Amino acid sequence: MKKKISKNKFTEKIIINNYLKKLNFNKQGTFNFENDASYIKLIKNKKLVVTSDSISENLDFFKYDDPKSIAKKIVTINLSDLSAMGTDPYAYSLNLFLPRYINHKWINLFTKELYALQKKYNFYLLGGDLSRSDKLHISSTFFGLSKSNKIIRQNKINFNYDIWITGNLGDSFVGLQILKKKIDIINIKTKNYFLKRYFYPKPCMIGPKLSNYVESMKDISDGFISDLKKMLDKKHKAEIDINKIPISKKLEKILKQNLINQNSILNTGDNYDLIMIAQSKNREKIFKISHKNKVKVSLVGKISKKFKLINDSDKTLNIPKEFDHFR
Amino acid sequence: MKKKISKNKFTEKIIINNYLKKLNFNKQGTFNFENDASYIKLIKNKKLVVTSDSISENLDFFKYDDPKSIAKKIVTINLSDLSAMGTDPYAYSLNLFLPRYINHKWINLFTKELYALQKKYNFYLLGGDLSRSDKLHISSTFFGLSKSNKIIRQNKINFNYDIWITGNLGDSFVGLQILKKKIDIINIKTKNYFLKRYFYPKPCMIGPKLSNYVESMKDISDGFISDLKKMLDKKHKAEIDINKIPISKKLEKILKQNLINQNSILNTGDNYDLIMIAQSKNREKIFKISHKNKVKVSLVGKISKKFKLINDSDKTLNIPKEFDHFR
Repeated sequence: MKKKISKNKFTEKIIINNYLKKLNFNKQGTFNFENDASYIKLIKNKKLVVTSDSISENLDFFKYDDPKSIAKKIVTINLSDLSAMGTDPYAYSLNLFLPRYINHKWINLFTKELYALQKKYNFYLLGGDLSRSDKLHISSTFFGLSKSNKIIRQNKINFNYDIWITGNLGDSFVGLQILKKKIDIINIKTKNYFLKRYFYPKPCMIGPKLSNYVESMKDISDGFISDLKKMLDKKHKAEIDINKIPISKKLEKILKQNLINQNSILNTGDNYDLIMIAQSKNREKIFKISHKNKVKVSLVGKISKKFKLINDSDKTLNIPKEFDHFR
Repeated sequence: MKKKISKNKFTEKIIINNYLKKLNFNKQGTFNFENDASYIKLIKNKKLVVTSDSISENLDFFKYDDPKSIAKKIVTINLSDLSAMGTDPYAYSLNLFLPRYINHKWINLFTKELYALQKKYNFYLLGGDLSRSDKLHISSTFFGLSKSNKIIRQNKINFNYDIWITGNLGDSFVGLQILKKKIDIINIKTKNYFLKRYFYPKPCMIGPKLSNYVESMKDISDGFISDLKKMLDKKHKAEIDINKIPISKKLEKILKQNLINQNSILNTGDNYDLIMIAQSKNREKIFKISHKNKVKVSLVGKISKKFKLINDSDKTLNIPKEFDHFR
């Protein structure tokens, strides 16, 4: 006699078999998730890059957010770290703390998006674990490999090195402000543009392609100024030209309407672009490779003796308050 | 002028600098935690074993538990997985979700214990992240390497293979029952013995030493029967002799007093011993190596066609209900 299994039963085994197994891409070391541990077979002398990041309900996303958005966030914060190290993603493990409101539909949408991202960026799920929680927390450990075996650090710097930013700053911050009802945008298309930037971030994966031409890289997670400061040291500071900070045409309009303060976008999170520090002799190469890969790059300043934000009139501006995601 | 920094300030930077940095043992790939990612330099053709496990407040421990106990738990659940794969620990990354009640004293005790365990079992902290949460959750990804490069699976089995258990079952379960006030033990020494088994678990690290003599291994995390069943398949079941289940002298007394049911200890969690499945020709080797390493091992049954619990009179006993930690 067959056992009756309720359709709505939500055990660990069912979640693993129905939703998670397809994410291992049948790779040998995963044992198809029928083992408590997995393995990565290593190539001679290769360095395996490891990064770990977590996201939590009410901090990084909200209870009724689209599961697709949450999947994008846990992948993006980790992929941008790998990209900044100059490495391509290889595999990851996933720890899910699931509250009772998570159901089949949620897990289905969440894992579908993980599957799409794995296909797009070419990595597989190695293992992980499931446990119960009041609020949704997700932590993930990502593994990366670099083709050249070169690992980019975040603080190899020297005076007059160029400071670059990929993409645009501030769009996802505007999205969050709309969501929090701190600002309102009447034009639906514009409003959705910013909301989309907040909900569905994309990692900037140019890192490995530029690793021969940059000295240091770091992804922006807490905000441009906060993250840039983490790359500097006691001797080496930065001079940033505020007019060169890359922003979207849509954000330009918002700034003209004084809906948000221009300075504030210098230190907003939920952005997964890269800060790059490079020797000026590599300018042309960096522009060329980025252009070829359809990634916007902007030269925004240089390493100097004093920390300075300059604008047209060269008047020093106030440096915005730093953001500590842990506070 | 010097900046005044309050002694009680509890920022990410302070936690990393004051407590976590000492756990990286100055290993090169950790960048002394001044980078967002780290790396593991690999040895030719080595397999890096990866396991991930999480523990949560109210499920695996309680709010006012000794931080040392919580450190022991997150390390033990992961180390016993590595041991079961036949590998020695190498490094780990740590994701801490910290509620507001966590203070300097807590982090100090917690990291002191991590340090002691790292020294004892020879592994270092590779990285991780900190985030805020209402309840304490800890997830950790551990990396292991095997000397022989042999990886033990948990389901390579055949008829008449021996089934072994390391250590004793049930002690930590009794500890939890005392804590939950479900049973009471008057003798303080005996009571403390069981409580200690619950609060301060030890992983059984005999795995790598026996990897040439066993076919399959698995750590007990959900309970002996539950975990044994995960090692079996449609064709291969197990016959277990209930009189051979290893228990401590102290638990023997408790059973005689009928404080707990003998059958119930077959499926209790919070035990980090190993189930091993081996060919009978290796019996002597397994006994010898275990004895040399001061690890108790017990031969409790064999792989058979039907699942059976036998006792003296060979009367089949009821199989206890399985435990799903995720339910």
